[in-house]
Amino acid sequence: MKALILSSGGNDSTSILSKAVTDYGTKEVATVSIYYGQRHDKEIESARKIADYYGLAHYEFDLSKIYQYSNSAMLKQGEAIKESSYAEQLEETKGEVPVNTYVPFRNGLFLSIVTALAIEIEASEVWYGAHADDAAGNAYPDCSIEFVDAMAAAIKEGTGGQVVLSAPVVDKNKSEVVAIGLENHAPLWLTWSCYKGEDKQCGLCGTCRDRIEAFKQQHVIDPVPYAIDIDWTDCEELSYENI
Amino acid sequence: MKALILSSGGNDSTSILSKAVTDYGTKEVATVSIYYGQRHDKEIESARKIADYYGLAHYEFDLSKIYQYSNSAMLKQGEAIKESSYAEQLEETKGEVPVNTYVPFRNGLFLSIVTALAIEIEASEVWYGAHADDAAGNAYPDCSIEFVDAMAAAIKEGTGGQVVLSAPVVDKNKSEVVAIGLENHAPLWLTWSCYKGEDKQCGLCGTCRDRIEAFKQQHVIDPVPYAIDIDWTDCEELSYENI
Repeated sequence: MKALILSSGGNDSTSILSKAVTDYGTKEVATVSIYYGQRHDKEIESARKIADYYGLAHYEFDLSKIYQYSNSAMLKQGEAIKESSYAEQLEETKGEVPVNTYVPFRNGLFLSIVTALAIEIEASEVWYGAHADDAAGNAYPDCSIEFVDAMAAAIKEGTGGQVVLSAPVVDKNKSEVVAIGLENHAPLWLTWSCYKGEDKQCGLCGTCRDRIEAFKQQHVIDPVPYAIDIDWTDCEELSYENI
Repeated sequence: MKALILSSGGNDSTSILSKAVTDYGTKEVATVSIYYGQRHDKEIESARKIADYYGLAHYEFDLSKIYQYSNSAMLKQGEAIKESSYAEQLEETKGEVPVNTYVPFRNGLFLSIVTALAIEIEASEVWYGAHADDAAGNAYPDCSIEFVDAMAAAIKEGTGGQVVLSAPVVDKNKSEVVAIGLENHAPLWLTWSCYKGEDKQCGLCGTCRDRIEAFKQQHVIDPVPYAIDIDWTDCEELSYENI
């Protein structure tokens, strides 16, 4: 096995997964998804469908007990989700604290699990879809280049060199990540990003707003349904959907 | 809460715990123990007794599902435990791979969990008892100074500076760690180290051999019972036991 991909079922990890499949083929790629008490646990169903679409080995773990004491808005027991973009939320807090959907050291924990599993199934690379927009202004400190660099070193040292961390889009913005997914024909219609986890994506939470904007910048209509009308002027349908 | 200590119930983490209690007092210290499928799960009972002894808040998590695919000798489903010291085991493998009791990226995973929990319970420091003997010759790469430094940076960056990693004995040998425990009157009679997890400590596995040697160097009789006779010439009973 070549690469184990941390797959949230969202747009970013599915885009890098499509690149891993292009690079290595489906026999050399596996995915892992983590339930941690997130409101939008339907993203796990998406991750499962995406692994099925490619015919990949897929692993799942449940960390919800570890986050039972957290009041992160990302979690079922947490604060309410805000209906504003990350930029607006950071303006409110002056960027001094992470946004209220930050989950304590989530990516450190997830990458550690993926690294452990990589050794177990003899995969030599761990891929992770953090990108520059997530880290902007301290919104999610566990997506920053500094965090990724330190974690890459911890993984190299702590596994005795058995596993390498790859964060192929850490210096790209969300729109560039969508571009990579489009280029590699990622099944983006199977993804789920909205933090609310209702029937359709809400179109109003931070992650929906940023996702819509990223697709608009690529002049492509996001293939997932939204609960509100979105103005897709100058955007085209996905050319390869369901092929 | 000041410090959250990763407590295995063994001699090393109990010694640093005793220092944390001396430094900050019992109200500012909590412990966390992790079951991960280890043969010697009675170490968890020890960790619980030690937290009780000090009257500390204590947390436990189960990660055994994450290690279900591993054949590490440390795990119930794994290879047999070797009856030789780490130095002898490393000579066999020429130090090219970790010893067969290495558990995939265990300390990366454990420290990530402790860090997440630290944010949840508002503790600002995470303490961890890795020491120089564990890292020697690549036996446990996830105890090396390089790993600890990288992980400390990942924790600082990934939590936005909310949590600091402290590894107070990373440059000390096991005997010096015992000395810290003795100095701070650690309840070492409650600890469990043996990897075999039988009625008494076996006295023959790598960790037993190294523990016995560490106590001998301090001229103190290890207060836990062993299944074999140990020559404690020139060693004295623990002076503060059960006080």
